[in-house]
Amino acid sequence: MINTDICIIGAGPVGLFAVFEAGLLKMRCHLIDALPQVGGQLSEIYPQKPIYDIPGYPEVKAQELVDNLMDQIKPFNPTFTLGERVDHLAKQDDGSFIVTTSDKTKVHAQVIVIAGGLGCFEPRKPVLENLEHFEGKGVTYMVKNPETFRNKKVVLAGGGDSALDWAIYLSDVAERVTLVHRNETFRGAPDSAAKVFDMANNGKIDLILSANLKGIGGNGVLNSVMLESKSKEEIKIDADYLIPLFGLSPKLGPIADWGLSIDKNAIEVDTTDYSTGVERIYAIGDINTYPGKLKLILCGFHEAAIMMHSAFKYVYPDQKLSFKYTTVNGVNAF
Amino acid sequence: MINTDICIIGAGPVGLFAVFEAGLLKMRCHLIDALPQVGGQLSEIYPQKPIYDIPGYPEVKAQELVDNLMDQIKPFNPTFTLGERVDHLAKQDDGSFIVTTSDKTKVHAQVIVIAGGLGCFEPRKPVLENLEHFEGKGVTYMVKNPETFRNKKVVLAGGGDSALDWAIYLSDVAERVTLVHRNETFRGAPDSAAKVFDMANNGKIDLILSANLKGIGGNGVLNSVMLESKSKEEIKIDADYLIPLFGLSPKLGPIADWGLSIDKNAIEVDTTDYSTGVERIYAIGDINTYPGKLKLILCGFHEAAIMMHSAFKYVYPDQKLSFKYTTVNGVNAF
Repeated sequence: MINTDICIIGAGPVGLFAVFEAGLLKMRCHLIDALPQVGGQLSEIYPQKPIYDIPGYPEVKAQELVDNLMDQIKPFNPTFTLGERVDHLAKQDDGSFIVTTSDKTKVHAQVIVIAGGLGCFEPRKPVLENLEHFEGKGVTYMVKNPETFRNKKVVLAGGGDSALDWAIYLSDVAERVTLVHRNETFRGAPDSAAKVFDMANNGKIDLILSANLKGIGGNGVLNSVMLESKSKEEIKIDADYLIPLFGLSPKLGPIADWGLSIDKNAIEVDTTDYSTGVERIYAIGDINTYPGKLKLILCGFHEAAIMMHSAFKYVYPDQKLSFKYTTVNGVNAF
Repeated sequence: MINTDICIIGAGPVGLFAVFEAGLLKMRCHLIDALPQVGGQLSEIYPQKPIYDIPGYPEVKAQELVDNLMDQIKPFNPTFTLGERVDHLAKQDDGSFIVTTSDKTKVHAQVIVIAGGLGCFEPRKPVLENLEHFEGKGVTYMVKNPETFRNKKVVLAGGGDSALDWAIYLSDVAERVTLVHRNETFRGAPDSAAKVFDMANNGKIDLILSANLKGIGGNGVLNSVMLESKSKEEIKIDADYLIPLFGLSPKLGPIADWGLSIDKNAIEVDTTDYSTGVERIYAIGDINTYPGKLKLILCGFHEAAIMMHSAFKYVYPDQKLSFKYTTVNGVNAF
């Protein structure tokens, strides 16, 4: 049994920074992540991609940010269980929790912080025969590395910003981009939509509106996508890749059974301290929602700071929290 | 007349980062600061001091953070009026504002963001005869550079964390530190208070409790501080410096007349969007307050991001805000 003050589920940037804020208040953290390394999406999906919206960093590579966060929390000696999923959460009589992972690792903690980010979500998939046989063999739900699609025939499906942005971006990379959307108008940004219509008029992409995905074909790997128009006309497109971009749906797994208030894709929290409706359970970063929420890393950092000040009372019920600036006292390791 | 979308009052780190968040939404900013340079406290008070609690920076010098923020907002070409105070704010018929500074600079903006930080506050001063004659000549309300006090006789007064922390810190620097407090117990952190009592017992500092500042003396520069104990006993202490640390009080100047809701030292805001009670006026950073507020730079960054998304509707009333990640689109200058 691992004993800690705070068990953080999710070791992405927000979960990592939460260790720092806990450490300033002398609270120890153990982090659990289903991925085999820390950093969440940053390390898993786009480690070499520059990020521009971290305050104070005009540009930073995703992995560099993760490395810096690891340096920043080092004085507080966080411990990690990586490559294991949280399977079970049991409330103890004294209010504390025992978390059990898929590999039967057990963590005892006073407070649980869910910082699972998009790791708690999965792509919404179209209903197509044999879809699962082509996943990873031409069907993908996410553009990890645009170079994968260089000089390939790509069919994108969807009407939101992801579909529009990737249609624009991949038009310079792929041999041919076809964007399929079931409606005549897009949900995404008007200027992106305007650009897509413009590119379609200029023959730079193929735009097929009022049509749905109907089937996929190929011999082991994808080679065609079948569409059906509103007038029931069938269209067959040669394709190396199909990328349905229909958004994400929650895959909260056992978290869904914890009595949390879930609004669509996220856990509802109180902005006073980012607590969930369940005492001693907090949710920070992309997994939470509240009025005005923005899914930005920098917002998760703020949520982590506020949340740890609230959690202090559970770890040190007899102490008065005394807030100190690191500019006066530095970072006192333990 | 300077025309802009957003007029930001205060060019400290939070005001600067607000330009970035505005820029991502194609809103232009003009910043006004009473100080002659950007960076607020960071540049004015402790430019060479390391900061440890900026996410992703294990350590960064205050001025370096300011320089990086200036680099980060450069693509959005913010404009500045420095060394001038805001004197007047006039609401126009169309809802916009005209801001007038002490030097009669006029700025027309759709939205006002108050990011004045501690620049909007002044130290609480003791009531002592001739106090103003000794200000800057032995009486100071802030420790800017501890080296000023090396091998000097320093009297600190106060019972909060500042008084405790500086008593501990300066005991290694000054010839002699005397800490004066009107009560028997301290408001500051219990462990700091314990350390101060310990140091007093070991003769490392002089601790005088249940006593008030009564007078100051000197010939042009301070050389003594008079105290009065609760039993009306008078105590005279040789001193090169007197540092009263009685906290800060708001010096909101004309802001106080704008109809904002002020709670003690700060402007009350709605955490949904950090709006004040006055339409089109927002307050972010150390100047605002709300349940759970922490006066941290990183919290101000979050507030800036949320606030700009809310302000969009005033700058582009006919457009739908479309939120884009910089990781997909980069930073598009204008």
